[in-house]
Parts: sequence; structure tokens; C-alpha cells
Amino acid sequence: MAEPYRLTASQALGLMKKGDLTVEDYAKSLLARIKARDEEVKAWVYLDPDFVLEQARKLDAIPADQRGPLHGVAVGVKDVILTKDMPTRHNSGIYADTPAPLVDAAPIITLRAAGALIFGKTTTTEFASTSDGGPSCNPHDKNRTPGGSSSGSGAAVGDYQVPIGLGTQTGGSTIRPGSFNGIYAFKPTWGAISREGLAQYSMTCDTLGLYARSAEDLELLSSVFQLADDEPVPAEPFAIKGSKIAFCKSPVWAKAGPGTQKAWETAKALLTQQGATVEEIELPEDFAKIKQWHSQVLAGEGRTSFLGNYLLGKDKMHKMLHGHVENSSKLSRKAQLESYDGCARLRPVWDDIASKYDAVFTPSVTGEAPLGIGNTGDASFCSMWTILQVPCLNIPGFAGENGMPIGLTLVGPRYHDLHVLHAGKAIGDVFEKEGGWEMKLF
Amino acid sequence: MAEPYRLTASQALGLMKKGDLTVEDYAKSLLARIKARDEEVKAWVYLDPDFVLEQARKLDAIPADQRGPLHGVAVGVKDVILTKDMPTRHNSGIYADTPAPLVDAAPIITLRAAGALIFGKTTTTEFASTSDGGPSCNPHDKNRTPGGSSSGSGAAVGDYQVPIGLGTQTGGSTIRPGSFNGIYAFKPTWGAISREGLAQYSMTCDTLGLYARSAEDLELLSSVFQLADDEPVPAEPFAIKGSKIAFCKSPVWAKAGPGTQKAWETAKALLTQQGATVEEIELPEDFAKIKQWHSQVLAGEGRTSFLGNYLLGKDKMHKMLHGHVENSSKLSRKAQLESYDGCARLRPVWDDIASKYDAVFTPSVTGEAPLGIGNTGDASFCSMWTILQVPCLNIPGFAGENGMPIGLTLVGPRYHDLHVLHAGKAIGDVFEKEGGWEMKLF
Repeated sequence: MAEPYRLTASQALGLMKKGDLTVEDYAKSLLARIKARDEEVKAWVYLDPDFVLEQARKLDAIPADQRGPLHGVAVGVKDVILTKDMPTRHNSGIYADTPAPLVDAAPIITLRAAGALIFGKTTTTEFASTSDGGPSCNPHDKNRTPGGSSSGSGAAVGDYQVPIGLGTQTGGSTIRPGSFNGIYAFKPTWGAISREGLAQYSMTCDTLGLYARSAEDLELLSSVFQLADDEPVPAEPFAIKGSKIAFCKSPVWAKAGPGTQKAWETAKALLTQQGATVEEIELPEDFAKIKQWHSQVLAGEGRTSFLGNYLLGKDKMHKMLHGHVENSSKLSRKAQLESYDGCARLRPVWDDIASKYDAVFTPSVTGEAPLGIGNTGDASFCSMWTILQVPCLNIPGFAGENGMPIGLTLVGPRYHDLHVLHAGKAIGDVFEKEGGWEMKLF
Repeated sequence: MAEPYRLTASQALGLMKKGDLTVEDYAKSLLARIKARDEEVKAWVYLDPDFVLEQARKLDAIPADQRGPLHGVAVGVKDVILTKDMPTRHNSGIYADTPAPLVDAAPIITLRAAGALIFGKTTTTEFASTSDGGPSCNPHDKNRTPGGSSSGSGAAVGDYQVPIGLGTQTGGSTIRPGSFNGIYAFKPTWGAISREGLAQYSMTCDTLGLYARSAEDLELLSSVFQLADDEPVPAEPFAIKGSKIAFCKSPVWAKAGPGTQKAWETAKALLTQQGATVEEIELPEDFAKIKQWHSQVLAGEGRTSFLGNYLLGKDKMHKMLHGHVENSSKLSRKAQLESYDGCARLRPVWDDIASKYDAVFTPSVTGEAPLGIGNTGDASFCSMWTILQVPCLNIPGFAGENGMPIGLTLVGPRYHDLHVLHAGKAIGDVFEKEGGWEMKLF
């Protein structure tokens, strides 16, 4: 048997169901993996091995017929999500000494109810808002960033330290680390998972994000979170043959570097080979305005969201957040409202466009993870989809010019989350096998 | 000097600034008032007098030049808002024994930074979502509801137990208790105050609400929360004379009972007497759809918001919340999205209409607080404005057929919060003096 830490959540669950693996042994394997790798990757801000093992033993003590669908599945939690038994520190000096809040964020309640083993807290940029990175490194190259702001969850899942990670996305904070770490990353439709108990930056954009090393694991999570489309997903796998797949370069395509360009062409060729009809599509002109609207919504909403902490400890806060609270960009309410209304007008337009295809691809990132851990990279390709509030799935499988992973994003109409995952699973199989990048263990 | 508990926040602050009142003495006066009245009104779910006095003494120890703009102002907090030193129990059996969460909701951080004295937690309906009332009573008639879901904050402020209360509004949960208790109630523009750390029901509607017994106090709070319109509010009082004031019956006018109808006519007459041009306006037909859209958005978002607690303690939850999670109304995602998009389309239409007037009035409630405390009343007149995300101010001053208070709501375009308060202050002076209802002390 492979070391348990190498397993996906679904594989580990299978063994546990058969009685071939205890939660405690599973947790021990993950803890050993973390011990071996943490000095290099630095994905965790809070991890108490004894507490993890104590929780694992409690899960093992649950009779088999009372176990939840995520029984014993280890989950790394971005440190902007409240966990009752672990502190939540937001990578902020203001919360450096804060104790465990004794209250769980709503998604944590759901995961615990399903039997998940909440493992520890993973690194984030300050309040999940800046692109100042560190200390986490990319597991595939310690001289590169794992992306952000969900840095630790992306790196920990990419490095086989846990099978599942929770992130959040306001710009590109879930999808970008997904691409940089070579894993599946899913940002569901805005509102499809409760965000009670998550740090607030932008009410319009903030969304819980999910990481895994297989699309199957994301389907498992989406069933726990009771995601539901109007049309049920077929029981049989998505048929690439005969499907109609759009490639949407989006208004920021000029930012795509050689790695993303190559992934783009490879993906089109692979899908065509598999019998799909592939078509490049262009969005109506108005969509080019969304990038600015997104910035304006973040500036306007950040002004509100960071006020309390600004009053509490301005000197410990990033200058960008001062700028938000002080409205240094002199954003008018009128411009903020025009941004809301503009995005709202385009949401159904996008839904209509996407509904004409079985799947739509768009870039995840400008290219492979950049050198250096000081900056978590560019979210340009993600922010439009975040504020359109649509489901986004990063599918790994491609390699950049330095052999680092690059993914592409499958986007769908709002509340077609399960359809996106369904298509992503079949397409991901192809990309993983033939896209040119392979997951490695370090 | 009047007993300190009778003072508005601004009046108490004035005395404290002059050194004529300590926070401790102020708190003692409020505590005595609560002690005298609590058996009848039952506004509080958590109140620790010793702890309040300890906090008060700490505030008194702050040197005069370091005191905040709300120094010593007592605030009652609806029990769905996290307070680090007091439990938050949501009127839910699931949280009956939960300890203080050691973390403050964002608005509480802001209030504490301004020197407020967080006094205790006030009653709410279960998760601020149902209209099942009790145990709180209306201070003006213990056989009547104080409204809900912000029952305790509305009753406590109306009964002179604290000068300021925090509520929330998803349908009419701030404005309705405002009207029923004869106080000023303000629901700012959606997003104008952070909702981090508040219970989540509907991301699209949930808004923090503020209670006070004077418009001046609400202006003080809005300055602490740094609400800001694009156009500054004039330094001089709003001139009713020469102003253009619209009266918008809204698509649910048929629900207005005799008390609200009388208040409506009285208000028009008073404003006309004062030299305003008063005009009844009708909204375009599409606005009649908003009531259903609001229900659908709550059903769709409640499905997500209550999932965690449903999994945790379904048997301790209200059947309506089961219905949300189980989607018993069989709401499709398509209908939910059409509701989002329909409301989004009408928001700028409303802003344009409202911008043509100096002030727009609409009913707050169907009539005076109904008999019985088992049901918190009807939110029909509020829900449209909540989902339009516009500022709403309940102005008291009118009397129903049983002598109970009735208010009217001043509504504005989004992010014209200060303008609404500015107009509301001048108009409130008139309504309070000549509307026919007078605040009484019991």
C-alpha cells in the first residue's frame, strides 16, 4: 500500500470504509509528511499534532454506521476562516496573540458534521487581501511563490500534506494557487456555500474555495455542501466526444505568457483529438470594463470591511488597507454603484453565452508561479469571473517553460457548479495524462 | 438633572464631556432602569451588571483627551452579533450553552474603538429569521409585540434602558421594531457597515441596523461608522420649506391599516403646512415583482446559510429553516437568479426616481404593534427596500387607534445615508411635536 498521505480524500475514505486504515494512522502519515516537508514549504501557521491525533482517535471511536461522508478526511483551513478550537490570525499583527474563537465558520460546521478532521490553519496573505507573500513556498520549487492569498492551503494540498484545503477568493486567491501548485481548485457560484465566519473583504466577491488533488474529491465536497444545479448531472461521465467547448481568452489575454499560451493551444488540440468541437469565443465589448469595476468594488467595499481593524491597529496594517479605509483612490459612491450595476447587468449575459456550450475554458493565470516568494502573483485572469459570481474550476496538467505546473479554468453559468465539476473530471483526466505536466512527490 | 437613563446618547456624552456624569454613574442609572423594567419588557438575553460596571470604570479611567466619540455610550447588541466577552446564542437551542466567542463582529470592534460601552445582548427571533416572538414585550403595552427580529434592541431603546441598540434587517427586522417601539431606526445602504461577525441569512439583504431615540444619535453613529455620501450634507438643518417630498405608497399599500393610513395623511399635511411640496408617486410596474423576488432570494440564500446548523442540530431548528435547507418551496436556481437580476436592474431605476426629490416617504409597517407577543408582525412594507439595498429611516411620531406608536420610513437612493439622516432629523422634529404621539416613560 502507498503511504496514506499520497492518497486523495476519496481513496483514503475507501480504505477507511473497508477498515484498512484508521483515521489515526492516516493522520500520523500526514503529520509525518508535514514534518518532513514543513521546513521547506511552510504552509502552516497553526498545527498541533497531539490535538490532531486526539481528534482522529475520537473519529475512530465512532461506530461505522454513524460515520459521515467525510469521515476522517483531513482538511487544511486558510487562516481567515473561524475554527472554534484553533486561533484565526489573518496574518495580521493585530491578531498575533488571539486565542481560538470558540466558534466555527459555517463551512467548518458543515465539514465537521460530515466527519472531516480539521487539521490545522494554513498561511494567508494579510486578511486575504494583499499580494505580499511569504513564508510559504511552492512545493515544486521553493524559490517560487505558491500563489495567494490562499497560499498555505494551495501548497499543502500540492505537497500531499493534506488531501483537502479551504481557501477563499476575492480576486484570484483560490484559482491562482491552484494553478501554481498543480492541483484542482474550485470556486463555486457566489452564495452556494455560506461565508458566515469568513473574514470579509468584498461582500460581492468573497467566496469560499476548495482544493483537492482530484476532481472526484471536489465532487465529494460539493455533495457535502449540498451544491445543486437545476439540471441533474448525468450518472455517466461527461462525454468529451461530440461536446462543444468554447475557449474564451477574455479581455486580459495580452497578459498570457508563453506557458499559458502553450497550455491554451495544447488544451485545444487535446480536446479536438478527443472529438470535441472547439471554438474560440469573444465576449461582448462591455466585459472589458469588468476589470476596473472589480477594482472599484473592492476599493468601495474594503473601505467598510477594514474600518474596525484600522481603528484597532492601523499601525499594524498594510498600507493598501489604509488606502481602502481612507478612500485614497477618491472613489465616488456613484462609481461604486455603477460598478455594481454594470456587473449585475452582465451576469445574465454571461450565463446565456456559457449556456450555449458544454464547457468554457479561460486562462487561470498569466503563467507558471513566478520566482520569489515576496509576491503571490497576478490575479488578472480571475477577477472577472469572481465578480460575475460564476463557478470556476482550475484543472492542472500543463507545464510552463521551467517545468512548473499551469492550469486552465473551466467556467460555467451561475449555479451550474456540478456541471462544471462533471465536465472538469473527464477533461482533467485527459489534461493530466497528456498535458505535459506530471504531479511529483518531493 | 433628569435621571441619566432618560438621556439620549448625545445628551449623555455632553454631560460626560463636561465632567458632570461618569460612565459608571451612567451605567448604574441604566442598570437600575433595566432592573425596574426587565420583568415586564424582557429585552435582554445576556446582561452582567458587574461586568458592565467594570467596563464603565475602565472607560472612566481613560484620560479625557484620549476618549472616543462614543465614550461611555451604552449599546444593546442583538444576539446574532458576535461579542468577544458575551455569548452569542441566536435564540437557538443549538447555541444555548455556547460560551463567549472571544471575537468581536466588525461593527463591535468599531464601536469599542470609539469608546462605546457594550452593555449586553438583546433578544432576537431564532437566527433573526423567523417571526416567532417572545419573551420580549412592547414597552408601551406589554400585551403587544415589540416587533422582530431585533425585538430586544427595539424594546430596550424604546423603554429607555439603553440609548443605542444594534439590530439587523433581512426583511423588516430593524424598521418594524423601530415603528412598534416609537424610536428612530436606521438601516443604512447595504455594504455601508461591515457585516463580518453577524449571523448570515441572506447575503443580498442582511444589513446592520441602528436604534436610537433621536436622529442626532444616529448621525453620531454614522460618523463613527464613517458613512459618507458623495455630496456632503449641508451644515445647516434640512429646510422643509421649499423642499420637494414624495410619498410612495409602494405596491403593498393595500396592507396599510387605519393607523398607517392616518399617519400617512397627517405626515403629508404637516409637511405641506411647513412649506414642502408634497407629491404622491407611483413606482413603475416592475417594482411589484420585488416582493416575490425577495422571498425567493431568502429561500435560495437560506438554503445555504442554514445548512451547517441544520446538520448540527436540525431537531432544535424552526421548521421554516428546515424548509429553506430542504428547498421545500422547490425554488429553482433559475428563479433565484432571475430574482437577483430583476432586483439588480431596478436598483438604479429607484436611485433615479428618489434623486428627483429631497425626501421620499413610504410606510414602515401595516399599523401599530399587534396584540400578542407570539408573532412579531408583518414586514411587507420593508422587504422591497431591503433588497433594493437603500437607506431606510423610521421616524416616529404618529399614533395608532390604540395609542401605540407608528412611524413612517424615509427612503433614499443608495449611498445617500447622510442625506436621509439629515432630512430625517428636521422632519422628525415636526413629526415628534405634531404627529400625535408622544414618548412616555413607564
